[in-house]
Amino acid sequence: MSSPDARTALQLRSLVKKSGELEVSLASVPIPEPGANEVLVRIEAAPVNPSDLGLLFSAADMTKAVASGTAERPVVTAPIGEGAMKSLAPRLDVSMPVGNEGAGVVVAAGSSPAAQALLGKTVAMIGGAAYSQYRALPADQCLLLPDGATPADGASCFVNPLTALGMVETMRREGHSALVHTAAASNLGQMLNRICIADGVKLVNIVRKPEQAALLRSIGASWVCDTSAPTFLPDLTEALAATGATIAFDAIGGGRLAGQILSCMEAAINRSAKEYSRYGSATHKQVYLYGGLDTTPTEFVRSFGMAWGMGGWLLFPFLQKAGKDKVSELKARVASELKTTFASHYSQRLSMAEALRLDNIAVYNKRATGEKVLLEPHRG
Amino acid sequence: MSSPDARTALQLRSLVKKSGELEVSLASVPIPEPGANEVLVRIEAAPVNPSDLGLLFSAADMTKAVASGTAERPVVTAPIGEGAMKSLAPRLDVSMPVGNEGAGVVVAAGSSPAAQALLGKTVAMIGGAAYSQYRALPADQCLLLPDGATPADGASCFVNPLTALGMVETMRREGHSALVHTAAASNLGQMLNRICIADGVKLVNIVRKPEQAALLRSIGASWVCDTSAPTFLPDLTEALAATGATIAFDAIGGGRLAGQILSCMEAAINRSAKEYSRYGSATHKQVYLYGGLDTTPTEFVRSFGMAWGMGGWLLFPFLQKAGKDKVSELKARVASELKTTFASHYSQRLSMAEALRLDNIAVYNKRATGEKVLLEPHRG
Repeated sequence: MSSPDARTALQLRSLVKKSGELEVSLASVPIPEPGANEVLVRIEAAPVNPSDLGLLFSAADMTKAVASGTAERPVVTAPIGEGAMKSLAPRLDVSMPVGNEGAGVVVAAGSSPAAQALLGKTVAMIGGAAYSQYRALPADQCLLLPDGATPADGASCFVNPLTALGMVETMRREGHSALVHTAAASNLGQMLNRICIADGVKLVNIVRKPEQAALLRSIGASWVCDTSAPTFLPDLTEALAATGATIAFDAIGGGRLAGQILSCMEAAINRSAKEYSRYGSATHKQVYLYGGLDTTPTEFVRSFGMAWGMGGWLLFPFLQKAGKDKVSELKARVASELKTTFASHYSQRLSMAEALRLDNIAVYNKRATGEKVLLEPHRG
Repeated sequence: MSSPDARTALQLRSLVKKSGELEVSLASVPIPEPGANEVLVRIEAAPVNPSDLGLLFSAADMTKAVASGTAERPVVTAPIGEGAMKSLAPRLDVSMPVGNEGAGVVVAAGSSPAAQALLGKTVAMIGGAAYSQYRALPADQCLLLPDGATPADGASCFVNPLTALGMVETMRREGHSALVHTAAASNLGQMLNRICIADGVKLVNIVRKPEQAALLRSIGASWVCDTSAPTFLPDLTEALAATGATIAFDAIGGGRLAGQILSCMEAAINRSAKEYSRYGSATHKQVYLYGGLDTTPTEFVRSFGMAWGMGGWLLFPFLQKAGKDKVSELKARVASELKTTFASHYSQRLSMAEALRLDNIAVYNKRATGEKVLLEPHRG
């Protein structure tokens, strides 16, 4: 192993103290020994996904964050409101590693053939603690990257690709034939757009700005609706009528958007209604909230009949429901289309220490479209 | 037949005019001839359920209702707001019969054995147009009432009983073991309470007033939470922890209650959590909105993790999903427990003409607990 101290390495940690303070820092941890069926990955690249930020900064008010420590071992602290502390009870005073996914090189392997087969290979991994210099984990939580793919190419190959594929799978499994996506200009949204074009699935993209609409159109999106346009609701109804989309995946969460999508679906369906039903159309309309970019309450006017559902959607429960064979099929597709359909773009590459600089946090914690950080745990 | 004019009879009608006016009146309609598999029911009693009021008065502002016509043939008109007219397009200028269910005596029958078997019998019926003096309908939409049961006993024997049974069935089918009900002191709520006691199912009753809580306790309810109590949220969490209820049926619809139920479910589940999960508990929590007593927007703070769902719930789609055998089983139970578990109580018995008096409308259109009207279409 190439670490100067072969016995310990750096790992990013997030700690919520009983006192109501968040502390994010770099810890020195022993480099683990891989078990029989495990591999040890030297992690070279790990993305900061919105799903990581929740664990990383918890409910802290990062506008009040304070930096201390040294440039190599920075410490960031920030206050957490009293209201939020209640739901954090199970993580109080537990220093937690962070990072859903990453990629790197297998530098040691357990005795099992599956583990040995990966030795020396570049792999992507999922399973937490990716913001670490080294990570031991079961061989089957790794995805062997195709020849020529770098760790940076494969760093985001689980969460976004499988989420995007999972949305299309969920659409099919639940009997819908077209779908809606919000925050559609995101890395994930662009991936989903490419998948839908490749698979011939009609996709209604909802964005918040004209330049995001232009971006999606430039990569071939047929239906794009901009919430900032005064004609947003009629535009959306038109797109829903044209596509027949009756399921939506919403990254926004708060505000009225989810309910507006259901209302516009109902209006689109009722365009062809022949009979009045006081209960609205019999067509089931579904919105899954998979993110919470808007943290304000969700509000909806019930103007979409009785055949509707709203709910949370998460990747891991979906993968469990889909089953091993389906997951293998999806992973194989990700590997084979890594540099095309599933390519990710990063606005910054940072070391773990750089990622804890307040100016950098202020940028990537906005979760703004186009601002995505790639951590490089071994960057000098 | 005993009608003075054997050829026509009265039927209550609701009409929404393109001009934006609701008109409710009594029409003279031909008494139908039953088809081969049909029976002709002389309807003696029909309840006014919340689900009937939506069709009867539509979105009209009944505080601005105006009465005209005669005492025998009253006409009620009321204005409908412009915003609401859009969703009413399919019923514009169509005079619609009203009344989901009722009961009466079979006075004529088609040639089929099933129809003939009901001749002279007292039956309950479902299928609309129950606010009529006579109604022809397929024999299998009737339920033969047990000996000694009057039409008033059986008038409410479909909607509320099958809805209450449907909630318990839905709970079981979706893998939950206890349930929550709001507006729990209603006729439906009291029925559900009796069913749950009989079946050993734990039920959390949510009511809006101390006297409703007392009523439910007096009929054996073990868990009753009153939204008007300052301790409502901790009380609810306590009841949810004690019962393990993870599914709720909400008749209120608007405001924050549905979201509060999900939040309290999550808090109850997390009492026994051993590990922190940033996505909340993995236990699926579900609230079905089956009514809209509060017509304001639904609002919720997403403080219950990601394993949750909200959605509409309606009796008829449930019955379709449950299948013929299950529905027969449920109907048989209703018939055999008609005067016990499934007994309904009415605050007023009105003729159809009396039901169109503005003072009566003002009372029953409030949908207040304890205010339930039984229409008697042949009442003089």
